[in-house]
Amino acid sequence: MSIELRNRLFEQLDQLVLVDPHTHINALDPSSHTLADILGYHYYTELSHSAGMPKELIEEEGISDKEKVGRLIENFGPITNTIQYSWFIEMAQKLLDFDGDSVTSDNWESLYDAAEKKMSADSWTETVFEKSRLESVFLTNDFDDPLEGFDTKKYVPCLRTDDLVFHLTNPRTKVRLHEATDTDVTDVASARAAIGKLFEHFTSKGAKACAISLPPTFAPVHVSDARAETALSAVLSKGADADEADQRAVSNFIFWTLAENCRSYKLPFDLMIGVNRKVFPAGVFQGQDLYDSRVSLIQYKDLLNAFPDVTFPISVLASVTNQELVSYSWIFPNVVANGHWWYSNTPTYIQQDCAARLEAIPRTKQIGYYSDMYKMEFALPKFAMYKRILAKVLAENFVIDRSWSEEAAVELGTQLLRGNVETIFDVGR
Amino acid sequence: MSIELRNRLFEQLDQLVLVDPHTHINALDPSSHTLADILGYHYYTELSHSAGMPKELIEEEGISDKEKVGRLIENFGPITNTIQYSWFIEMAQKLLDFDGDSVTSDNWESLYDAAEKKMSADSWTETVFEKSRLESVFLTNDFDDPLEGFDTKKYVPCLRTDDLVFHLTNPRTKVRLHEATDTDVTDVASARAAIGKLFEHFTSKGAKACAISLPPTFAPVHVSDARAETALSAVLSKGADADEADQRAVSNFIFWTLAENCRSYKLPFDLMIGVNRKVFPAGVFQGQDLYDSRVSLIQYKDLLNAFPDVTFPISVLASVTNQELVSYSWIFPNVVANGHWWYSNTPTYIQQDCAARLEAIPRTKQIGYYSDMYKMEFALPKFAMYKRILAKVLAENFVIDRSWSEEAAVELGTQLLRGNVETIFDVGR
Amino acid sequence: MSIELRNRLFEQLDQLVLVDPHTHINALDPSSHTLADILGYHYYTELSHSAGMPKELIEEEGISDKEKVGRLIENFGPITNTIQYSWFIEMAQKLLDFDGDSVTSDNWESLYDAAEKKMSADSWTETVFEKSRLESVFLTNDFDDPLEGFDTKKYVPCLRTDDLVFHLTNPRTKVRLHEATDTDVTDVASARAAIGKLFEHFTSKGAKACAISLPPTFAPVHVSDARAETALSAVLSKGADADEADQRAVSNFIFWTLAENCRSYKLPFDLMIGVNRKVFPAGVFQGQDLYDSRVSLIQYKDLLNAFPDVTFPISVLASVTNQELVSYSWIFPNVVANGHWWYSNTPTYIQQDCAARLEAIPRTKQIGYYSDMYKMEFALPKFAMYKRILAKVLAENFVIDRSWSEEAAVELGTQLLRGNVETIFDVGR
Ligand SMILES: [Zn+2]
Ligand SMILES: [Zn+2]
Ligand SMILES: [Zn+2]
Repeated sequence: MSIELRNRLFEQLDQLVLVDPHTHINALDPSSHTLADILGYHYYTELSHSAGMPKELIEEEGISDKEKVGRLIENFGPITNTIQYSWFIEMAQKLLDFDGDSVTSDNWESLYDAAEKKMSADSWTETVFEKSRLESVFLTNDFDDPLEGFDTKKYVPCLRTDDLVFHLTNPRTKVRLHEATDTDVTDVASARAAIGKLFEHFTSKGAKACAISLPPTFAPVHVSDARAETALSAVLSKGADADEADQRAVSNFIFWTLAENCRSYKLPFDLMIGVNRKVFPAGVFQGQDLYDSRVSLIQYKDLLNAFPDVTFPISVLASVTNQELVSYSWIFPNVVANGHWWYSNTPTYIQQDCAARLEAIPRTKQIGYYSDMYKMEFALPKFAMYKRILAKVLAENFVIDRSWSEEAAVELGTQLLRGNVETIFDVGR
Repeated sequence: MSIELRNRLFEQLDQLVLVDPHTHINALDPSSHTLADILGYHYYTELSHSAGMPKELIEEEGISDKEKVGRLIENFGPITNTIQYSWFIEMAQKLLDFDGDSVTSDNWESLYDAAEKKMSADSWTETVFEKSRLESVFLTNDFDDPLEGFDTKKYVPCLRTDDLVFHLTNPRTKVRLHEATDTDVTDVASARAAIGKLFEHFTSKGAKACAISLPPTFAPVHVSDARAETALSAVLSKGADADEADQRAVSNFIFWTLAENCRSYKLPFDLMIGVNRKVFPAGVFQGQDLYDSRVSLIQYKDLLNAFPDVTFPISVLASVTNQELVSYSWIFPNVVANGHWWYSNTPTYIQQDCAARLEAIPRTKQIGYYSDMYKMEFALPKFAMYKRILAKVLAENFVIDRSWSEEAAVELGTQLLRGNVETIFDVGR
Repeated sequence: MSIELRNRLFEQLDQLVLVDPHTHINALDPSSHTLADILGYHYYTELSHSAGMPKELIEEEGISDKEKVGRLIENFGPITNTIQYSWFIEMAQKLLDFDGDSVTSDNWESLYDAAEKKMSADSWTETVFEKSRLESVFLTNDFDDPLEGFDTKKYVPCLRTDDLVFHLTNPRTKVRLHEATDTDVTDVASARAAIGKLFEHFTSKGAKACAISLPPTFAPVHVSDARAETALSAVLSKGADADEADQRAVSNFIFWTLAENCRSYKLPFDLMIGVNRKVFPAGVFQGQDLYDSRVSLIQYKDLLNAFPDVTFPISVLASVTNQELVSYSWIFPNVVANGHWWYSNTPTYIQQDCAARLEAIPRTKQIGYYSDMYKMEFALPKFAMYKRILAKVLAENFVIDRSWSEEAAVELGTQLLRGNVETIFDVGR
C-alpha cells in the first residue's frame, strides 16, 4: 500500500513545472551536443577513475567525443550500482528514447549516434526544458561575466563569489575585477566600490542570488576597516605569500562586504558550506575535492546575527551537519535549508535529511532541491530521484505516520519544489 | 501488516501509567489556564518567529492572552508541517475535545473559549494527569527553591545546578546561595558546606535527581583544593571579569563537588550535554539557544571513571552524538541513555536514535522518554509521539527483523517507558 | 511483499561460501572447547559488566569454565535485547542444535554439556567451517608470530602493526623485534631493515594484508630521515618518557615505512580508524576502549596521495564517519570501504552505512563484512545478521526503489560478500 501511495504522490509532484535554483549551466550553450558532454560530467569521470580507469585514458588530449564516450562506457561495469549511473540511464530513456536498462559495449554506439542526431536539432534545448518540465534555471556566473546574449528570465544570473573572497591573492583576480568594474582595487574604499558595481551590474541583469562555496575552516567575522586596510595592502602586494592572518582578514572583509551588498540589493546569499578543495590533486577535472565533516554552523553565528535582513539559503556538504541546518533554520528567521548538495545528494542521505527538515523547519523555509547540473539533460533524472524520495517521505512520515491526507502531502511537496523557490528568490511568479 | 502490528504494540504501550522523569513544571501552577499558556511554549513562539512573525508582535507587553493566541494562530500557516504543531492539535483533540485537524483563524476563538472553560475547573490538573496516564512528574528546581506547598510524590523535586556551576560569577547567585543555605560562600570549605546543605534540603524533600545542562566545550576535570581556592577567590571578587581559566576552574570544582554529593546522597546526576546559550540573542524568550554538534563524551571520561557509584543519565542534544551515547552506555556501568532531547526530539532522529540504543545498550540502562514540558498538557502528545515511534521500532526491528514475539516487544517497551524510570530514579514503586 | 523479497534475496546470499577478511582467530586453536570460550567474548563480559555484574565475578581467577558460564547466563536478563545476545542464541541454534530461543538459568546447563560434547569432536572446527559456509579466515598476527603449524590457505596471515607504530616506547617491543628479525633496531636504517624482514617473512608465509588500528588523533605525515633519526634515538633510549613530539615522529616514521613495504610487497593496508584505548580502565578485558567520533579522513590525505599503488581498505569506528568513507572511496582509487567495525557493527548503523555505500561507491570497492571474531563459532551469526541487512537494503533500495531485478541485486550482494574479497586481497580464486 505504501508503494502505491508513493507512486500516487510522485505522479502529482512530477507534473509540476519547476525553477532550478542552482546550476552551472552555460546560458550560451546550455545543453549537450553529444554523449561526451553528458559523460564528461565529473561524476562519471571521477567514479571511473576511482574504479581504476587511468586518468590519462579519461582526459587524453585530442581524442574524439565518440572515442571518449566509448572508453568510459567500456569501463562502466564497476559503477553500475551507483545512483549517478542511474541518472545516465534515466536520462537516456526519457530524453533519448533509449529502451534498454544498461548501456554497454554492445549498444553504446547506436545510442551515441541517436543522441548526436537529437542533440543537433535547433530545438533540442527547448525539448529538454519541456520534457524536464523546467521553466528556468539559475546560473553560476563568474563576477566578471557580462551576462549578455541570453534571456535572463530563463537563465537567471547568480553572482558567484569564491574568487573574490578566497583568490584575491591571485593577481589575475585583481585584473579581472578591474576589467569588470573599471575600478582599480587598491584599498578598502576601492574594494567596496568595485563590489558595489558588481552587484549593480548583476541586479540590473536580473540576478536573483549571490552564492559562494566555503571551506570547513571558514568562520566569518567582521573586521574593522583599519585591519582590512593593512590586510588588503599585504595581500595585494604579496599575493599568496601574504601572512595567513592577512589572507583571512581579507577573506572576512570581502565576505562581509558581500553580505552588506546582499542586504542593500535584497539578494539571498547562498552559502554552500564545507568543501576542501584539491584534497586529491591527482584526481580528474572537478574530481579532486572532498571535505572534513567537522564543521559547525556556529561558525556563522556572527554573520547570521549581523544580517537579519539577508536570507541565507544554506547547503551543507555532509549529512552529519544536516541536523544543525535543521535547528538553525528552525531558530534563525534568515536561515533557509537549501537542497541536497554534492556528496549528500544520494538517496540514503537525501531521505534522512529531507525527513528531518520536513518535520521541524517551517515549511516556507525549505528549498527542496536544485540540480547543480552543468548540462540541461541532468535536471530530469536528478529531480526525478529527489521527487521519488520526497514522495516516499511524504507517504511514510506524513500520510502513514501522521495521518495526513494525500492532498495535504502533495501541497507540502509542491511548496518545497516550487513555491519556496518563488518566494525566497523572487522568481517565476 | 507492519502498520497493524505497530498499532497493536502502540495500543498496549499507551495503556501504561507513566512517571515523567524530566519536566519544567511549576508544581504550584502545573497546568494551563488558557491557550496562551500552551502557545507560549517556546516551540510555537520560536517557530513563528523563525517563519517571519516579528518578535514585537509575539512578545508585546500588555496584550491579553486571547490577543496573543489569536496573533500566533493567524501566523501558523508556515509551521503546520512541524511535529510541534501536531502536538498542539493532538493536545486540543485529546484534552480539549477539539474535533478538527487544524486550528485556523476560523475556529481558534471557539477553541480558546472552550479551553478556558475546561482549564478553569478545579479538577483540570487532575484531569490532565488522568487523561495523560501520568502518575507523577519530575520538576526542575532552582537550587534555592523552598520545595514547599506541593505533594513531592506527585511533583518530584530535582536539583538543577546550572547556576551553581556556570553563574557564580553573578553576585546574585552568591546572595541566593546564602539565602538558601545560611552559608556565606567565601572559600572552598564554605562552598562545600553550602552545596552539602542544598543536597540535604533537596533529599529531605524527596528529590530524586540532580541535573545540569552543559555547553559543548565543557570537559570536567578534577581540580585540587588549592587551585579551587585561588580560582574561587578570583571569581567571587571579580565576577565575570575573572580570568577565563579561573572561571573554568570554579566550574570544575563546583561540578565535581556536585558529583561527590550525588554519590553521598545516592542521587542520579542527569547530564544534558551540548547546548550553546544565546546563539541568537534577538530570538524570542527561550528561543535563542543552539549548539555546536562537535562534542564528544570522551570529554566526560575522567568524571565517569571517578564516580563509578553515581548513575549518570545522559542526554545529548544532537543525533550525531547518539552513537557515542550508545557506546558509552554499553561500556560504562554508570552511564544511562536518557530520552530524546530538544533538537533531537523529532520523529526522524528519535527513530534512528531509539533503534540504535535498543539493540546495543542493556535494556535496564535506557530511559525511553521525558517530556521536558513547561505545562502539563504537553505530556500527552509528546509521549504519544514517542510511543508511536517506539512501537514502530519494536515492530520493524524486533518483531519483523528479529522474530520477537509481540509480548516480548511490549515488555521491552514497557521497561523503557516505566520500569527503568522506577529503578534508576527509585520512584513509583 | 518486501519481507518475502528480502527472504528470497537472503536465501541466495546465504548459499555463498565466504572468505572472512578480518578475524582474531588463533589458527592453532580456532574454535571453542566449551561455552566459556563463546561467552568469554568481550561483548558478553562487557555488556554484563555494564549492566551491573561485578568485574570480580566475571573475571575471578580459578573458577571453572562451567562456573563462569553459569554466572554470566544468570546475569543475562538485562542484555537479552542486544544484537550480541541474538548472536549467541543463533549460534546455539545453528551450531549446537539448541531449540529454544532464550538461554536461562533453567536450561543453560544442558546446553553447556551438549556444547562441550560437540566441541570435543576432532572434526568440530571443520564442522563449524562447513555449517558457516566459510572457506578461509584472515588472522591478526603479531609481528613476531612464527606463522607455523597451520594451513595458511585456510588461515590467512595478516601482519598486525599496532605494536610497531605505537609501542616502540615499550622496551619489550624492541626485544621482540630483535627476536623476530635478528636485527638490532638502533636507528632508521636498522628499523627499515627489520620491518622489511617482517614483510619478507609474512609474505613468504602467504600473508595477504597488513593491518593497524588507529586513534582518532592520528594524522600520518611523512617525516624526514633526519627527524626520524633523532626521534627514534629519543624513543629507544627514554621509552615512554620521550617527548610526545618524538613519540609522534617515530609513529609517523614507522607507519610510513609500513606503507612503503605494503607498496613493495603489494599488500593491502587495512586501516581501522578511530579507537581510543583504555577509556574505561576499570572495564573487563577488552571492554575498556571507546572513541571520540570527531575524526576525519582528511587526516589521511597525505598518505592516500603518497601511496597511489597501495590499496587501503578502511574501517571507521563511528557511523558519523561513514559518509566521509563513502566520499573518499568514491574519489580516491586506492580507498576501499571495509566492513562494519565494532561499535558500528549493529543493525541500525549497518543498514544506514551499507545503503549509503551501495549507491555511491564503485561496486568493486566495497568489502561487505568481516566478523572480527575470536572464535570460529561467531562467523555464522554475525554474517547472518549482515546478510539479512544486506538483503533488506538490496530489496528496498534497489529492487523496490530503483526497479532492479532480483538477479542483479543478488549479483551485487555476491560481489560485496565474496567477489571483492577475492580481488582486493588476492585470495580464494
Ligand atoms: Zn554548484
Ligand atoms: Zn529541560
Ligand atoms: Zn579486529
